Amino acid sequence: MVNRAEFTLGQLAEALSATLEGDAGRVVRGVAPLESAGPDDVSFLTDGRYRAAAQTSRAGAFVAGAGVTGLPAPVLRVAAPQQAMIDLLLLFHPAPPLVAGVHPTAIVAADARIDATAAVGPLVVIEAGARIGARARVGALAYVGAGVEIGEECVLGPHVTLLTGTRFGRRVLVHPGAVIGADGFGFAFDGAQHRKIPQTGGVVVEDDVEIGANCAIDRATFGNTIVRRGTKIDNLVQLGHNVEVGEHSILVAQVGVSGSSRLGRGVVLAGQVGVADHVRVGDGALVGAQAGVAGDLDAGGRYLGTPARPSLEAKRIFAAESRLPELLRRVRALERAVEALGGGPLGPKAARDE
Amino acid sequence: MVNRAEFTLGQLAEALSATLEGDAGRVVRGVAPLESAGPDDVSFLTDGRYRAAAQTSRAGAFVAGAGVTGLPAPVLRVAAPQQAMIDLLLLFHPAPPLVAGVHPTAIVAADARIDATAAVGPLVVIEAGARIGARARVGALAYVGAGVEIGEECVLGPHVTLLTGTRFGRRVLVHPGAVIGADGFGFAFDGAQHRKIPQTGGVVVEDDVEIGANCAIDRATFGNTIVRRGTKIDNLVQLGHNVEVGEHSILVAQVGVSGSSRLGRGVVLAGQVGVADHVRVGDGALVGAQAGVAGDLDAGGRYLGTPARPSLEAKRIFAAESRLPELLRRVRALERAVEALGGGPLGPKAARDE
Amino acid sequence: MVNRAEFTLGQLAEALSATLEGDAGRVVRGVAPLESAGPDDVSFLTDGRYRAAAQTSRAGAFVAGAGVTGLPAPVLRVAAPQQAMIDLLLLFHPAPPLVAGVHPTAIVAADARIDATAAVGPLVVIEAGARIGARARVGALAYVGAGVEIGEECVLGPHVTLLTGTRFGRRVLVHPGAVIGADGFGFAFDGAQHRKIPQTGGVVVEDDVEIGANCAIDRATFGNTIVRRGTKIDNLVQLGHNVEVGEHSILVAQVGVSGSSRLGRGVVLAGQVGVADHVRVGDGALVGAQAGVAGDLDAGGRYLGTPARPSLEAKRIFAAESRLPELLRRVRALERAVEALGGGPLGPKAARDE
Repeated sequence: MVNRAEFTLGQLAEALSATLEGDAGRVVRGVAPLESAGPDDVSFLTDGRYRAAAQTSRAGAFVAGAGVTGLPAPVLRVAAPQQAMIDLLLLFHPAPPLVAGVHPTAIVAADARIDATAAVGPLVVIEAGARIGARARVGALAYVGAGVEIGEECVLGPHVTLLTGTRFGRRVLVHPGAVIGADGFGFAFDGAQHRKIPQTGGVVVEDDVEIGANCAIDRATFGNTIVRRGTKIDNLVQLGHNVEVGEHSILVAQVGVSGSSRLGRGVVLAGQVGVADHVRVGDGALVGAQAGVAGDLDAGGRYLGTPARPSLEAKRIFAAESRLPELLRRVRALERAVEALGGGPLGPKAARDE
Repeated sequence: MVNRAEFTLGQLAEALSATLEGDAGRVVRGVAPLESAGPDDVSFLTDGRYRAAAQTSRAGAFVAGAGVTGLPAPVLRVAAPQQAMIDLLLLFHPAPPLVAGVHPTAIVAADARIDATAAVGPLVVIEAGARIGARARVGALAYVGAGVEIGEECVLGPHVTLLTGTRFGRRVLVHPGAVIGADGFGFAFDGAQHRKIPQTGGVVVEDDVEIGANCAIDRATFGNTIVRRGTKIDNLVQLGHNVEVGEHSILVAQVGVSGSSRLGRGVVLAGQVGVADHVRVGDGALVGAQAGVAGDLDAGGRYLGTPARPSLEAKRIFAAESRLPELLRRVRALERAVEALGGGPLGPKAARDE
Repeated sequence: MVNRAEFTLGQLAEALSATLEGDAGRVVRGVAPLESAGPDDVSFLTDGRYRAAAQTSRAGAFVAGAGVTGLPAPVLRVAAPQQAMIDLLLLFHPAPPLVAGVHPTAIVAADARIDATAAVGPLVVIEAGARIGARARVGALAYVGAGVEIGEECVLGPHVTLLTGTRFGRRVLVHPGAVIGADGFGFAFDGAQHRKIPQTGGVVVEDDVEIGANCAIDRATFGNTIVRRGTKIDNLVQLGHNVEVGEHSILVAQVGVSGSSRLGRGVVLAGQVGVADHVRVGDGALVGAQAGVAGDLDAGGRYLGTPARPSLEAKRIFAAESRLPELLRRVRALERAVEALGGGPLGPKAARDE
């Protein structure tokens, strides 16, 4: 990617509300991590741990917090270095300019309402009654079903599918290939076959949610599947019908949440976690990768394993498992020793006979 | 979703073959679950367990089975309440009307045969020799490869991809983003690199199958990958080349089945289950979420865990695992006690030396 | 699929550098496995194990290695039967002819550079500055973002999405629905909400890589996510930002690799394996299905389970787990026997009190 931005350190200090230690006229042209930064780049220390790496960095300047001194180039001193790094990246990599308007190859229903400031890409399909908010961007080849509503500054990547019943708040970002609003998975066996239970509900996605590539979020049977504001969802995540995800939660790639389960606020599900149906996960619960959540989890708890157990317990079990083959031998030795002392009979057969 | 249907209870009684207990002239305008139903809605009790919830429901009428009495509004009495609920939902939420014809922006090969009663949406691509059956619906932006055949009343969602070698029966429903007929994953290492084994077979999907959003079902190396009639597949499921899934099976979200494995009739694989290659799963086997199936499973069996074990055994192991750290301490205590009694030496070191 | 190719055994012997044992003039019209081959088909024994099956095969000819004799039809004798089988399949199933040119319905930016020998399908979108190499094929409805580069003979299936920052070498094959170059999953909590860390890097895919249907490979935060040459990736695989996959590796379906992890050369991850972030997996390591890799793995090692352990150890633990319920009973019996001998008190309570 070619990036033509350049700033003086003085300009950056102003933009980041930073205190500059060094030459305000020095020009930088990019942002890079410590190891790969060159003299034209500004780099950053989000943590004091990186001090040693900074000493050998060729960066032209550093963004750093209060405690980090003795750096080999000018310093933009800030209170919150990681937040400043984000501000810095936004300066050097601004969103591409929004070119308002509907591409002539888009197929837009006559009664769809598309804000004049929105951008609709080539070969997009927007069905009857859909509403696209101000400054929203609809990527090429996206599909927006009948009656779908997306708020201000939403961004749909290419190949996104939003089906009828889907309503987005503002600034929702959906990556390519995600499918929102497909039928939930509900059937009733009538003795001969599985009959489909019509899925009549919708999907509500609140403000500032991000949804990863090739995710699938199903519409509710009745009511709504809900993703509350500020929640971030990684790629290939599955949310079943009537799931509710609380505010500011994090769902890492390939997570699956079954029908009607409710995650609280600030929940973190690491990669490939599975959550059974009708489960409640308390606020702030943190579930480790690949865990299988079959029952309710407490707010604030940390969980691991399948079935998911409190982390400390799970780690003790993992450690003990490593000793299982040894334990079997020790028990056999004990049985022999106790039999020799006159106890018994013992051993697997005796245990079964109990 | 706006829903303009309205029915009198008398009309509903007739449509559902129900016995009406109450005012035949009363009008209802929607279907809703007990908790959210209002006076304009008909609600339902699929099970006697919901009797208490029904007492406080504001629903204008109830669909209920024989045993449930004393409800606070008119009752449509039926033999099978869950099936009646489906009938009811179909009355209030009929499929959108089929507007036959090919959208002018669809790109259709000259020799593709599209039934005059089928509906092909905008920006669809249909390649040479494909056949689309009567009353089928091909969603916007779908891709139908050369020679693909889909039967009567099939429905392809937006962004579905069907590749060469795919043949569908009737009433197959495919949700957006699913990819059917991509190459199976087969390579032979030639000493320097993995050479691709050409995948020359197809995919056969029989009548009444449903395939979820963003699924991937690969074509066979030779012959066909087969999904038999009545089987329902949730989102993000992977079926490898030459897999065969029996009739009326249920594959929940994010399941993966490896090459050449065969599932019987009426099999249920819960979410995130993985099945190794060349495995046979007997008719009616039920496999719990996240299980890993590495070997054949018996018909009618219930299985859990990785590696998958009979449920009862797996549950006993899960329970025992929780006691593992305690067990280690108990064995250590036993070793000390036995040594004190004159047995031994015992313990981890002795166990290793055995 | 209709397949019109036909060859004499003499022609095949020449094409495969095989020694023919039998009638050079005999004509065959297809390739099929032993069980389903008919007299018009050539079949193959990739391994001596299949000798018995070959005896009852109706195939018109066989491809076989040196040691396999007494077959019931002419034999094309080769040094490497599996490689010869691939050559044979390529003869009977050649790639469809490449029809160079850009379909009139494709939307191609004025400054995109598309080689005159490349084929761009209907309803494709190619953005500004993209480059498509010689004899590349871009499938229908694919999206190629601004500045993306794809080399000679790459093949993009329908509905593939390549976003800005993606660069492909030669002969990269991407199956439908895969999304390459979406934002990595990176956020920094600012006390009130998760702020998005702009993802400014790219994705580099080297020569001869294959990427499965509906995969997601994210762009790097800085620098590149890298898939090195010859690596084969199955369907629904997730690679996070800044992942690096070494040469000639195999990633089976539904694998997930978290941010910044590095896999060596010739690594095999079986289906549904998860790899945590910042992990290193050594060259040639082989990880069994559904394993959870939380820490570094040695080159050449074989691993299983969650957390991933060396296979031998994991298998011993799996075996011992089956005996856990019995073990609990044996320990209880031991405790009683030792108490009877005058040791103790023992048991769960005593163990807790320790």
